[in-house]
Amino acid sequence: MTQFGSHGLVWSGTFDAEGFRHAVRKNAEAGFDILEIPLLDPFAFDVDAGRAVVEQEGVTVTASLGLSAATDISGDDPDRVAAGERLLLRAVDVVAALGGRYLAGVIYGAMRKHEAPATASGRRNGIEVLRRVADHAQAAGVVLALEVVNRYETNIINTARQGVVYLREIGHDNIRLHLDTYHMNIEESGMFEPFLEAAPMLGYVHIGESHRGYLGTGTVDFDATFRALAHIGYDGPIVFESFSTAIVDPNLSNTLGVWRNLWDDNEDLGRHALAFMRGRHRAVETIALH
Amino acid sequence: MTQFGSHGLVWSGTFDAEGFRHAVRKNAEAGFDILEIPLLDPFAFDVDAGRAVVEQEGVTVTASLGLSAATDISGDDPDRVAAGERLLLRAVDVVAALGGRYLAGVIYGAMRKHEAPATASGRRNGIEVLRRVADHAQAAGVVLALEVVNRYETNIINTARQGVVYLREIGHDNIRLHLDTYHMNIEESGMFEPFLEAAPMLGYVHIGESHRGYLGTGTVDFDATFRALAHIGYDGPIVFESFSTAIVDPNLSNTLGVWRNLWDDNEDLGRHALAFMRGRHRAVETIALH
Amino acid sequence: MTQFGSHGLVWSGTFDAEGFRHAVRKNAEAGFDILEIPLLDPFAFDVDAGRAVVEQEGVTVTASLGLSAATDISGDDPDRVAAGERLLLRAVDVVAALGGRYLAGVIYGAMRKHEAPATASGRRNGIEVLRRVADHAQAAGVVLALEVVNRYETNIINTARQGVVYLREIGHDNIRLHLDTYHMNIEESGMFEPFLEAAPMLGYVHIGESHRGYLGTGTVDFDATFRALAHIGYDGPIVFESFSTAIVDPNLSNTLGVWRNLWDDNEDLGRHALAFMRGRHRAVETIALH
Amino acid sequence: MTQFGSHGLVWSGTFDAEGFRHAVRKNAEAGFDILEIPLLDPFAFDVDAGRAVVEQEGVTVTASLGLSAATDISGDDPDRVAAGERLLLRAVDVVAALGGRYLAGVIYGAMRKHEAPATASGRRNGIEVLRRVADHAQAAGVVLALEVVNRYETNIINTARQGVVYLREIGHDNIRLHLDTYHMNIEESGMFEPFLEAAPMLGYVHIGESHRGYLGTGTVDFDATFRALAHIGYDGPIVFESFSTAIVDPNLSNTLGVWRNLWDDNEDLGRHALAFMRGRHRAVETIALH
Repeated sequence: MTQFGSHGLVWSGTFDAEGFRHAVRKNAEAGFDILEIPLLDPFAFDVDAGRAVVEQEGVTVTASLGLSAATDISGDDPDRVAAGERLLLRAVDVVAALGGRYLAGVIYGAMRKHEAPATASGRRNGIEVLRRVADHAQAAGVVLALEVVNRYETNIINTARQGVVYLREIGHDNIRLHLDTYHMNIEESGMFEPFLEAAPMLGYVHIGESHRGYLGTGTVDFDATFRALAHIGYDGPIVFESFSTAIVDPNLSNTLGVWRNLWDDNEDLGRHALAFMRGRHRAVETIALH
Repeated sequence: MTQFGSHGLVWSGTFDAEGFRHAVRKNAEAGFDILEIPLLDPFAFDVDAGRAVVEQEGVTVTASLGLSAATDISGDDPDRVAAGERLLLRAVDVVAALGGRYLAGVIYGAMRKHEAPATASGRRNGIEVLRRVADHAQAAGVVLALEVVNRYETNIINTARQGVVYLREIGHDNIRLHLDTYHMNIEESGMFEPFLEAAPMLGYVHIGESHRGYLGTGTVDFDATFRALAHIGYDGPIVFESFSTAIVDPNLSNTLGVWRNLWDDNEDLGRHALAFMRGRHRAVETIALH
Repeated sequence: MTQFGSHGLVWSGTFDAEGFRHAVRKNAEAGFDILEIPLLDPFAFDVDAGRAVVEQEGVTVTASLGLSAATDISGDDPDRVAAGERLLLRAVDVVAALGGRYLAGVIYGAMRKHEAPATASGRRNGIEVLRRVADHAQAAGVVLALEVVNRYETNIINTARQGVVYLREIGHDNIRLHLDTYHMNIEESGMFEPFLEAAPMLGYVHIGESHRGYLGTGTVDFDATFRALAHIGYDGPIVFESFSTAIVDPNLSNTLGVWRNLWDDNEDLGRHALAFMRGRHRAVETIALH
Repeated sequence: MTQFGSHGLVWSGTFDAEGFRHAVRKNAEAGFDILEIPLLDPFAFDVDAGRAVVEQEGVTVTASLGLSAATDISGDDPDRVAAGERLLLRAVDVVAALGGRYLAGVIYGAMRKHEAPATASGRRNGIEVLRRVADHAQAAGVVLALEVVNRYETNIINTARQGVVYLREIGHDNIRLHLDTYHMNIEESGMFEPFLEAAPMLGYVHIGESHRGYLGTGTVDFDATFRALAHIGYDGPIVFESFSTAIVDPNLSNTLGVWRNLWDDNEDLGRHALAFMRGRHRAVETIALH
């Protein structure tokens, strides 16, 4: 059965033990099945405290992150590539320690505005690192899901089709695609075909509005999105993502260009989003009757 | 505050005392504020029993109907015009007796596939009747709302713009426009401008999907619809309408061309629709923050 | 290579030799490859004169029609069923005589607002007639294409999915599906999946706006439509259809509920439609680059 | 009468005399009324040669640019603010020398991914510069149009509403808003209301697809866009913008994140875009008939 989650930054700007526990509780109160932890700095994450929260609260978690310039595995600086590999291996360990099954996001290169196309050698570096990290993850029961993001956040994979090509190039069965409606709305030709193209490799889905505020107040075609997800029989995690200046992670908000306030009340936002996603999911089931 | 309702045929195919009470209870269980009674034959409606249901259950009602060929006030047969006027006067009385405030629907002519354009004299007949019925309704505290419907259900007003012209021609301040997204999706150029054009006269809104099934499983642009309603500050009734072969009113289903089953479970359908409408309504409020 | 056509009623309200020649010339001036002849009364069509026009003007034609109550092959009146079969056989002969390859439209039952669901026996009658007409057509080099239309024009097939079931029931390889965006916008859950479902059987496509006026001024999602047509590799006829009170066929306009004027200038309308369709068709080709 | 233009980078990656003449000729061959010159470095533009091209070819030009970090007038570094002011004054002079009427684009701050919100003092700096540049432009017969762009290209004005507030703050009647559908698709709540909100101040419009490729192959709702432009009676320039790796300006492509090839054949692209825009513009005119 499809599980719905929310991104941790809906609930808390920090993920120390206290921030994590707060997010877990708010997430559960809103009715979500999963909490996605922003794990941009896995070395700073207190695994023992985190595991205690998971056990006490009984939450299912996933994690996501975007590499930075200093940990860009798809670049030509061997020190940075190595630093990126260490970060990813550590992230896998954190996810595994928390009983999580997915490490998602821009884990194949720096999540930032690039100033030039990726180089062929940088691209190769990333692929080699990902194969090793995927082996490590497989042994730990963690699946890697590479997020296709827009042109301002990567120069490697901007469309589902590019993602499929990239995954074929990597050729590792523990790596899946991660699609996000916010990015798709910028880069894809529509919301239906990308899911058809990615279907056999799709492992993780982010549901975000075009401006990353309340679902249904922007330009994303969620009707097509949920019909497509049903059409391909997708049954992996579906995670709501939203960012506002109301909750700020200094690591992430400026990277993502969150300059304005799209909501004040995260409890209302979260409940609304879950009802929106569950409602769409239920509605498209009834198309079988038509 | 905006009130959300559902059309009675979601819940019951009959509106004798038992059918009415059943619909009222189901409607309340699903959380709606208003129940719209299908009043195609107001002479057959048991007013005393109906009033008892209203008082015992504490429900707010509205009513709607479509005239038939035999009661077409916009035709050239004086007997039918007179019969239509009697029917409308009676419908007003029923609504008033139930404490209702709105009589909506195709109350300006026969709701059927016409085989020729309306004649000028027929159109005048309808207008004269409506003025008298509107006077009667005003005295009874009931507002008339004329539903703009598609080409297969009227030859008088198919677009909001035609509705505005028609209302100006009638020139009675107790008559408003009734827009329905199902019909708008067929006849209008978009879902935003018709609400702008109709704004000062808009008194009643139907929310229906393009095929009249689950909201969000068809082609209606509900994002634009709810943004437009907020943009013009509409605060009248918003009523969900859906028809399936699962519940059949022999007076209505064949007139509406309900040939297939779009849902089985009306409780799920109703809850889903209310969550959909409330969710959209809430979401567009947050656009004020953007 | 995809061929684009227009429906004859864009150009002329009559199809005697003069009206036909006028339509052929206007159609060619606008740049269309094909002219679709409205063949509601094939016995009234002057085949010799028509053939002369075809030969002199060098036009490629198709034909479409909707059966009437008097020729409803999907009803229970044997005389009407027989009359419908005669009409269809004659229509096939006319198409063949004009060198046409397609007979499309509502050729499986009366194109009208029905007042009750189709009966099982009526449905069987229609299927038997269609098998015989399809044999006759096959021998004449003519393909039958059954148009899926909205609830107000048939009670047999309102969706592509119902069309697929119906064609399987008929089981004749000379019968294809005919989809029309105007009707799809009312009955389908979206504009992409119906083409996926119908793909192996799709033989004819009508492009019409939601209100049957200028393309791009209504609610039909033509982006998805043309992406879907490209996705399934459809290469059959694509025919523009539009109706306005500017040009009236008394047989057809009232049946279709054409009560208002959506255009005055059919030359502008036709050129616009062809540029719209060719533009979309070309644009989606470029998606291969993405 | 509305004039349609194209962005120079559709035709040429360089704008020395030769590149400029090439772009002018290609633009005219495709049928556009206006050519928008990318004027990122106005000091490098050869004005005498440019004026000769304009006079010989008889083209109407506009210009646009985005400031860089080194010329960010909305920052706190007085040298960069001063450098930005000099650049803008020079750009105005170039436009005036070429007989142009509009200087558009991100002329109020650096067009780049910012790493922090704008400061209050930086914002004030920009406003003061703009007032002086607007005075200079007014004297030269040039209008400034500030482009509302997405979060990755500015931290000052991401939405039409923010643009209106910003223009009121500046308070200069020679400064207008410049809206761009590519950016609106990311930041706005829809494509209709922003034009309503910006109407009295709107002076320049960019038409770009969601991925900046062929119009109609992405997610932008151009139906609503052109209906809104007609609704507000906009009659200023409408300029098509598209970027692909097929034509590269090293100053601009990497800033805009152009990592993939969305077209090869700019002649086909340009003709297609013009037909698309003119077709939409013509179609919405006919809505007056509805």
